[in-house]
This record gives sequence, structure tokens and C-alpha cells, in this order.
Amino acid sequence: MNFTSDNAAPVSPEILAALAAANDGPAPSYGADSWTARFREKIASLFGPQAIAHPVATGTAANALALATIVRPYGAVLCAEEAHIASDECGAPEFYMGGAKLIPLPSRDGKIRPAQIDAAMARARDGGVHHVLPEAVSLTQATEWGTIYQPDEIAAIAAACRRHGLALHMDGARFANALVTLGCPPAAIGPEAGVDVLSFGATKNGALAAEAVIFFNPKLADGFERRRKRAGQLWSKMRYLSAQLDAYLESDLWLRNARQANDMAGRLAAGLGPHVIHPVEANELFLTLPEPQIAALESAGARFYRWVAVEGVPNPVIRLVTSFATTETDVDRFLKLFAAQKLAA
Amino acid sequence: MNFTSDNAAPVSPEILAALAAANDGPAPSYGADSWTARFREKIASLFGPQAIAHPVATGTAANALALATIVRPYGAVLCAEEAHIASDECGAPEFYMGGAKLIPLPSRDGKIRPAQIDAAMARARDGGVHHVLPEAVSLTQATEWGTIYQPDEIAAIAAACRRHGLALHMDGARFANALVTLGCPPAAIGPEAGVDVLSFGATKNGALAAEAVIFFNPKLADGFERRRKRAGQLWSKMRYLSAQLDAYLESDLWLRNARQANDMAGRLAAGLGPHVIHPVEANELFLTLPEPQIAALESAGARFYRWVAVEGVPNPVIRLVTSFATTETDVDRFLKLFAAQKLAA
Amino acid sequence: MNFTSDNAAPVSPEILAALAAANDGPAPSYGADSWTARFREKIASLFGPQAIAHPVATGTAANALALATIVRPYGAVLCAEEAHIASDECGAPEFYMGGAKLIPLPSRDGKIRPAQIDAAMARARDGGVHHVLPEAVSLTQATEWGTIYQPDEIAAIAAACRRHGLALHMDGARFANALVTLGCPPAAIGPEAGVDVLSFGATKNGALAAEAVIFFNPKLADGFERRRKRAGQLWSKMRYLSAQLDAYLESDLWLRNARQANDMAGRLAAGLGPHVIHPVEANELFLTLPEPQIAALESAGARFYRWVAVEGVPNPVIRLVTSFATTETDVDRFLKLFAAQKLAA
Amino acid sequence: MNFTSDNAAPVSPEILAALAAANDGPAPSYGADSWTARFREKIASLFGPQAIAHPVATGTAANALALATIVRPYGAVLCAEEAHIASDECGAPEFYMGGAKLIPLPSRDGKIRPAQIDAAMARARDGGVHHVLPEAVSLTQATEWGTIYQPDEIAAIAAACRRHGLALHMDGARFANALVTLGCPPAAIGPEAGVDVLSFGATKNGALAAEAVIFFNPKLADGFERRRKRAGQLWSKMRYLSAQLDAYLESDLWLRNARQANDMAGRLAAGLGPHVIHPVEANELFLTLPEPQIAALESAGARFYRWVAVEGVPNPVIRLVTSFATTETDVDRFLKLFAAQKLAA
Repeated sequence: MNFTSDNAAPVSPEILAALAAANDGPAPSYGADSWTARFREKIASLFGPQAIAHPVATGTAANALALATIVRPYGAVLCAEEAHIASDECGAPEFYMGGAKLIPLPSRDGKIRPAQIDAAMARARDGGVHHVLPEAVSLTQATEWGTIYQPDEIAAIAAACRRHGLALHMDGARFANALVTLGCPPAAIGPEAGVDVLSFGATKNGALAAEAVIFFNPKLADGFERRRKRAGQLWSKMRYLSAQLDAYLESDLWLRNARQANDMAGRLAAGLGPHVIHPVEANELFLTLPEPQIAALESAGARFYRWVAVEGVPNPVIRLVTSFATTETDVDRFLKLFAAQKLAA
Repeated sequence: MNFTSDNAAPVSPEILAALAAANDGPAPSYGADSWTARFREKIASLFGPQAIAHPVATGTAANALALATIVRPYGAVLCAEEAHIASDECGAPEFYMGGAKLIPLPSRDGKIRPAQIDAAMARARDGGVHHVLPEAVSLTQATEWGTIYQPDEIAAIAAACRRHGLALHMDGARFANALVTLGCPPAAIGPEAGVDVLSFGATKNGALAAEAVIFFNPKLADGFERRRKRAGQLWSKMRYLSAQLDAYLESDLWLRNARQANDMAGRLAAGLGPHVIHPVEANELFLTLPEPQIAALESAGARFYRWVAVEGVPNPVIRLVTSFATTETDVDRFLKLFAAQKLAA
Repeated sequence: MNFTSDNAAPVSPEILAALAAANDGPAPSYGADSWTARFREKIASLFGPQAIAHPVATGTAANALALATIVRPYGAVLCAEEAHIASDECGAPEFYMGGAKLIPLPSRDGKIRPAQIDAAMARARDGGVHHVLPEAVSLTQATEWGTIYQPDEIAAIAAACRRHGLALHMDGARFANALVTLGCPPAAIGPEAGVDVLSFGATKNGALAAEAVIFFNPKLADGFERRRKRAGQLWSKMRYLSAQLDAYLESDLWLRNARQANDMAGRLAAGLGPHVIHPVEANELFLTLPEPQIAALESAGARFYRWVAVEGVPNPVIRLVTSFATTETDVDRFLKLFAAQKLAA
Repeated sequence: MNFTSDNAAPVSPEILAALAAANDGPAPSYGADSWTARFREKIASLFGPQAIAHPVATGTAANALALATIVRPYGAVLCAEEAHIASDECGAPEFYMGGAKLIPLPSRDGKIRPAQIDAAMARARDGGVHHVLPEAVSLTQATEWGTIYQPDEIAAIAAACRRHGLALHMDGARFANALVTLGCPPAAIGPEAGVDVLSFGATKNGALAAEAVIFFNPKLADGFERRRKRAGQLWSKMRYLSAQLDAYLESDLWLRNARQANDMAGRLAAGLGPHVIHPVEANELFLTLPEPQIAALESAGARFYRWVAVEGVPNPVIRLVTSFATTETDVDRFLKLFAAQKLAA
């Protein structure tokens, strides 16, 4: 009953097996190996031949490198106020961008709207050189609240970006979870919807430590490789990073893993009903419960994250996250416990 | 016959096995796991209880984070002009330190001398606020030329550091290789010799991607963890980083691996004789050879790195690096080829 | 009728005269001159002997250097959301601090409250290494809305800072304007109220280009001088910066200038009555007026700044700023025009 | 007899008078004033209509801003090892560029040669992403040794820059001194010789605190104004910066000032003969003298700078700098003293 985070999960057996298979004699270092080439081919077949994919080990690195490549130090990034880049990366984007700012936009469901971009740009233009210059928008797919952007919502944001000369970044730490819910091809919520650069997550969905920065707009990719190197994010034994990503995409492992995680979240949601405070569209649930009930769940062995207080929600909020490794048994044990607590309350 | 680099080598089977063993259900993320705890205990037993060890994935990250923690943005680091931090990390230390400078000191054998530190400090003091303030010295053990610092050489440098209020960093990407040659306890070329912070390498010596920053002087460690996070260097599934390091230190695997690499370098050196331009004290050899002979070796399938021209050495220079995975067969094939080429020349 | 800003004003004749007087043969460069010494003595007599004052040319430089000296790159600064450092300096604090964040706190009157600091610190602690670490609070005196902090309000904030280990910075671009309203000694809203470092403004109040960073807590001043140099903020002919500041403090010029500015703001406020949306406590007024009336004032030759829309205020908002150079004639012409427009409307 | 530096000199009376003349009522802030417009027109008439000039207060700011605008954080700048940007600005270029490196090239006379650029580029290319990417060359005119680049020398360096895709920056802290020696139009050692961006100095040659960054290649100027603002280098009362520069160029004041400085340096050189260790081509002289003679000059009241030891020069080296304010009387007093000392020795 560990629902603290999808990063508390282990590694998919297929990915561990790929590491073992890659461990066969010497190989060129720094990415000139065949695993990296194979991963890149898979990305090109999913997102189109213009897609340029660069593996890195962490999601924070992927986001910070992507943003630093498309935003200058006197620039700024518009994002939802709950965005991981704004709240949970200890200033990594600011560090990598050389001090450029994140401009948080308020949001009730984790999603930002085109009108907010228009308004933010009007304010920025008004300030002239005294204000930082927004140069990018960053979306999170799925969002921090476990909701997802529909293709047409992304396209509308991309249109706003084009109106204002902004690049569009997507933090896809849970890209696969969003994708299986939408049931569309990956490109439909990537390049076809107007996304310029994607942080393509795998760690939360079964990899050991593997993400990729994928540029759909090659003009924006200039300098990425030196930035990655000087950030200490270029692996010498790169094959072991790429082998994870290659196995992740092989035989739809990524989609199967995400589907399992989402299904388990849905099963939880179905059993928890009105306590759920956001639509459960991916693998995260947010519940509001009276404190004694939360404490009782904890002492019965359930593991989850206590969220910060949410405005307008009277009781405390907890977050449950499922993963590829979550089983029906896990879910049903939790639901049984929950029902028992409720009865007792 | 791949002698391009020790990072072209695969992963020790023991370390792959440790990854598989760690893949057992959920575990706390970000380092609150038992593998990280076990690794830290091993470090404490090797280097003393005050040693604080933080795992990271690359050597560049280890160096840049270590230096950024001990040097302020208006500061500077004294190092050998060939130092990896100065030549091969694409400005990572400068990036992490917020623009502090590396001040390269000339060196014929890769080692710097206390008198150079004294002279550099005199120059810096003379410049007052117009000059950056040296705050650290960085040594490489083994050096870029495959030579090693003796314990008393390190202690003499540490004494110079104390004279001038400098912290002492050691880039130990090949720490194990130096150690097995010296045959001393690890602490003798670390805290006991006056080193304050060590980049403890494992990747070149059998790990997949694992290094550690080890502070022997806890006063200098302040802020490291937030710096690591904001650099995108904190793994969510940290157990898979720490499990590598734990296995690396288990049953002296690290020393066995390094000994094999060093022995193979020695075997090469013995066969190549006067072409070797530096003492072979670890697992690197530098040879000077006429260009036709180099080309002939390459076309016969030998793999190595062509070095930049070395002042005072008439012929081109090549570098051969051995690893834990280098076998006597590899070495003897190369030596046979070399002898045949020479005969032909 | 130019009320656009106090930085549209000219230079006090006394300060120009001081520049001419300083222009007498050679003088030591970089601050080793007698004008700098004299200015520092005046600061010590105003704020106490422990006060260390460093001249710089702009307010943005003063703020950014002060904050960079007391906040580390992984740190953060709590400030009001309207703060100049957050909105009008194009990311200068972030640049100087190496990417540390500003955390804006909402405020209706430009002032922040101790409870907001407590709440922000609780949130930050909850986030651990994933969140930046607040290390300072920055107040603006007078605020962006022309209001002022009372000594006990500052002391209460300073107490909150001490509770949480934060340094307290004051952006005193209009310090003199606040001071003459309060009628207290300067130290009472500086070191005695718990301020650690002050950006002491003079440019808006009669200088040509001169501010000072004043550390009341010498322990926090470490490294300031190298930071100033590497920011390109150290004047070689420093005497011309210090001579301004020396003349500014001589014979209470600064207080006389500020009093004139404040008096003229009061005279405006008295004539504009209910259109004024904030208490006029220094030399700034904010008016809400129907658009046609604003346009009419503009076409009649009045100059002022159109503010961004203010939440909850139906009409557009304009800002009027007075300076030492504003005369009763200027004010009365504007009031006459205003009355005439109103009558016509 | 103060020859310590041209920045120990006072301000030209014409420039002080211009400040007083500018002090006439309100004026638009941040550069939208008529003094800035007039200065820009003068620059356009000197350097051509494409020249874009931005005033700043210090030479370090001019250099650091110019370089940050043309070099990315993973880039590098090739310069002479004695260059002010490398030795005397406490890391300002590295700070402004976000950690990009300066690559110092050895030089006996302060000048770099095209072949050094070719060699440095070959080394950089060899290193791939592991090395920083040189993106600019920076020359100093006049050099740190008081020598000057001829137009054809600059053109040859510019050709090397074009071969390698590098921008060409000139640190013209003593541009006027070089110009009067060469006797050519300013554009001949600026845009016509291939310079892309010039730090145009005035402070050392009679201004109070005024320099300008002049872009001859408008494509390289993108983002400069926001960089200047966020560096705290944008003056609110800009008219007082521009009025200095306008007066500096008015009626050839800049050339008259520089000629006086150079003439006085020539007069010194003529009297000091074989002790001078570099050609005296501008307003700096370097002398080598036995220590007792240096000490005797000092105790007789002469003021100059003791230089760092120069390789291959047996005795200590001192630097004498003349300025527009140096008189024949100053020079002749020094020469008389020098002759007397020599006789005594």
C-alpha cells in the first residue's frame, strides 16, 4: 500500500534485462553507441524524423536543460503556479537559465489557459526593459493535479505562443500516463499540437533513471549538447541510459506500464468517490479527509503524501500515486482499510 | 584492443547484480533508502566517521558540485593546466560556481607543487578586489598523465592550502587506481593528507554511472544537498545509484578492479619501453610514435585516443587506457601488433 | 507639471557644486579618496560605528548586490509582490544572486506582515531540498504604493526574520521620504529596528547617480567588494560618486529635499481627495480616474505614469510622483487643470 | 608627479560644464532624453549609421555587457593573457556571460596574432562538446603594454575571426589614445577593420564615469538593453551619462585630451631612454629600474604603479600613465628627479 509516489516504484524487469544485455564488451562513450542510435530511431518513428532526442538521467535535468536552451538569461517562462519546475526543483530552471524567471499563472486544475498567456504578455510588454521578457510557456502533462491537457487545449496554447513569439515546452514527466488516457498517437499531443520541446519522462513509469529532451523544432536545439555536458549531465557510459529508453519504447512497454498505473488510479477513485477533489485522468489522486482518518490510514500501514493545504478545501489533502507496479491487491487492501475507517468514524 | 578510455568498458557483473537485487518492491526515494545508508557506512569505515558522502551520476557533476560548495562566485580554483576540470568539462565548474575562475598552473607531469600555490596567492593578493580570490586547490589523483601524488606530496599541498586559507579538493576519478599503486589505506591520501573534499570515482572502474562527493570537513558541506537538487543531480530512485556504490566497495571489488587495470597498464608499458613518455603509475599510458606507425596500429584494429601535441615531444602522442575489463589477451595482441609494426618500419 | 517620476528630476545644485569642488587635481582611485572617507564618517554618525557603506551608481545595483551578498544561489528572498526588485529590475536580483528566487507575498498596501513570513517559512520547510531556502526578507521603504513602514512594523518583521534565521534587507530608494514623514532618527528605521542591510537611495532625491549599500551587520558584508567589482559597479573615479553622497548628507540636504517632495505630494493629495487610492505617506500618489479624464489631463500637458490595472479598482490608475524640484506652482497648475476637467466631465 | 593611472585624473572642465548645462528641469529618464540622442548622432557620424551606442558608467561594465551579448554561457573568448578582462575585472566577464571562459593567449607585446586564433580554434574543435566553444576574440586598443594595433593588424585578426565564425570585440578603454597616434579616422580601427562591438572608453580620458558599448554589427546587439538593465547598469537619470559622452566628442575634446596624454608619455619616454621596455605608442610607459632607484623616486614624491615581475626582465618594472591633465611641468619634474637619482646611483 505504498502510494507515496511513482518514483518509489522499482524498475521494470524488461528495463533491467536491457541493461544486462547492453553489458557486452566495450562500447563508444558519450552517446556514439548503438543503443543511443536505436532509441533515437524509435523517437523519430513516434514523433517524426525532425525530432532530436537527447537522453539525461533526471526529470529536473530534462526540464532545466530544455528551458535553458530556449530562454535567454533575461527571459522568462510562463507556467502554472503548481508546476514542478516552479515548486519542486529547488530553482533548477533559474540556475540553468542563468537567472531567468518563472512567472507562475494561477490555476485551479493545474492547467493554464491561452487568455492567461495573452494577459501576461500584455503586462510584460508594458514594462519594457524593466521587465523580463517571456520567451517560453511550459505545460505539465499530466498536470500536478493529475489532470490532462486535451490535444485541442495544447493547440490553443501553442497558437497563443505563436502570437507572442514564445516557444512551447512540455514537462512530460507523466507523458505516457496522459497518452494512454487520451488514446491518441504521441505526436498528437507533441509536435502536431505545436509543442517545440518535450521533457519525455520514463523514470516514474518504470525506468531506473532515464528521461529525454526531445526537440521537435530543430532551430531551438542549438547548443543543447554543450549545455548538457557543462551541466554534468552527459554520461560517459551513455549506452546504459539509452538502453533503458530503448527498452522503454520497445513493444509498447511504456504504454503498458502507464495503463496499469492509470487503471489502478481509476480503481482507487471508483472506491473513494466524493473525497476525490480533482478529476482522476492519469495516475494521481487527491483526497480530502478529516485528519483523524488520515492518521488512522497511516497507522494501518498505508503510505501516501500529505499535500499542502488547498484553498477552499476545508479538510487536509493527501495525494495517492499509482505506478506500473501497483497491483489490484494493493488497491483493494487500501479501499478495504478506507471503508473500515469510515465506518468506524 | 580497445584502449580509448576506461569509460568505454562495460559494468562489473557484481554491480549489475546489485542493481537486480535492489529491484525489490517500493523504496523511499531521494536517498532515504537502505542502500544509501549502507554505502555511507562503508565510506565512514574507510575514511572516518566525519566523512559525509553524497552519490551523483557523473564525475563532472561530482567535481562541479564539490567546487561550487567550497568556492564563492568571486573566487577561484588553482589547478594543473591539464586538469579535467579545466579542459574537459566544457566549463561545468564555472557554471556551477556562478562564474568563479579556474587558474591553471603549468605542470610537466600533471602534478602541481606547493611553491606554485604560494606564487599564485602572492599574485592574487597583489591584485586586491580587481582579482578573483583563490579559495580552493584542486588535485587530480591519478593525474591526467597517469602519474600519482604520494601521500607526502598531498600533505605538502594541504599545508600550502592552510597557509593561504584554501580548501583542498581532489578529483579522484581514478582514486582507486592511485590507491592500489600506493598500497596505503584510502584515508592516507584523503583526510589524513589534508584533503577536504573528494570526488570519489567509480564509473571508470566498473560502475554504470556512479560517483560520490565526500566531504571530510563537514564545515564545508553546507548547502550541498540543495545544490545537488537544483543541478538536476538528485536521483528520485536513488537506491540504484547507491546500490552501485555499495557493491563497488563490497569485498574490495573497487581495489580488485583497479589492480587489474593497473596491471594491464604495467604489462603494456613493459612491452612498449622507451616510447612511453610519462611514468606509468596507474592505468594510463602516453606513447610518442611516428605518425605512420600510429596509422598502422589503427588500421590493424587497435583503438586509442590521439592526444594533443605535447611541447618538446617531436612525434604525435597517443593515449592508451586500461580498465578492469582489459585482459592479458588484449594487451598481448596489441604488443604483438606493435612489435610487428616496428619491425616493418 | 511633470509627475512621471522622481528620476525625471534634475540634480540638486548643492550636489553639482560638490562635483565641481571635487574636481581638483589627481585623487586615489577606487575609493581610497577623502570624499569616500567623509561620506562613510557621515553614515557612521547617522547609523552607528558598525555601519559599513559602499557607494554604487544605481538602485538596482544596490539592491542586487545587497541581496547577492546575503543570499546563496539556492536561496530565496521573501518580498511584497509589487516590490521593485520583483517587478522592475528585469531580473537583476536573480542574476546577481546566481539564480536564487524571489518569493512574492500578496499585499494590498505594499507592506508585508510577519504572519506571511511565518507561513512562507512553513511551506519552505515542508519542501525540504526540493524547495529553495528563504534566506532574506526584503522590504521597500517607502513602498511601491507610497505607504511607509512604522518602526514597530519593521521591528515585528525583524523579529520574524530572527525566528527563521533570515536576514532583513530594506530597499530604501525613498528612505529619506519615509524618514521625514516618520520624524524619527534614521537608525530607528534601520539598525535599531533590526534591518541588516539597507539600499540607501539618493538618486531619486537629488543626486545625479548615487546610492549606497549599508551593512549594519558586518558579518553579512563578506565578499561585497569583490562582488561590486565583478559587477562592473566599482567606479575608478570613485570620488565623484562619494562627493554626491557626501553633499547629499551635508547640512541635511537629503531631508530638506525629501520634505519638499512629500509636502508637494500632500498638497496634491489634499486637492485630489477621494480619487486617491492609497494613503499618501511619502512622495507618490495613485489616483483612479475615468479614462477620458486621464486623456484630457495628458493632452493639457500633464505628465504622469499610467499604472497597471489594480484589482478591485474599476477605473484606470495613474501615478503621480513629486520630487525636491516640484514647486507649488507645478502642483497648483495640475490641481487647477484637474478641477477644470472635472467640471467639464 | 602622479603617474599611477589615468583614472586618478580629474574630469575635463568641458565635461563638468556639460553636466551643469544638462541640469535644467525635468527630462525623460532611462535614455529617452535629448543628450542621449545627440551622443548617438555623433557616434553615427563617426562610425557610420549602423552603429548602435549604449552608454554605461564603467569600462568593466562595457566589456562584460558586450561580451555577454555576443557569447553564450557555454562559449569562450580568446584574448591576450594580460588583457584587462582576464586579469583586472575580478571575473566580471565570466559573471555576465554566465560562466563562459576566457582563453588567454600568450603575448610579449600585449597583442595577439591571427595564427594564435587558428591554433586555439583547432584545439577547441578537437575537444568537441567537452570543450567550451570560442565565440569571440577580444583585443585591447591600446594594449595593456601601451602598444597599439595597426589597422591592418586588426583586419588580419578580423579575417581570422570570420574564418572561424567568431565575433570581434575591442576593449577601447584607451581607444582615443590609440587613435591619435595612428592619425586615422575612428572607423578605420573599428567597423572598417572588422570590429563587431567596441567598448568605447571616456573615463580614463577626461570623463567622470562614462563609456559606451557600440555595436557595429546590429545583428549581434539583440538583448543588450535588457542585459544592461538587469546588470543594474541602466541609469535612471541617463542624461548625465550621455551629456558626458556628448561633450567628450564635441569639438574633438576626446582627441585633444588623448593627444596631450600621449605627448606627455612621449616626453617621458624621450627622457627615460633605455629603461623603457615596450614601445611607447599611447599614454603608458613601462620602465625597468633597480629597486633602490624605484624606492628613491617614491620617497621623493613620485607616484606610479609597481608592476608584477616580467619574465626575462631582471629588474622590477614600474608603470607610468599620463592623462589629459598631465603637464609638461609634471613630466619635467619627474625627469629631473630621475636624472638626479641616476647620477646618485
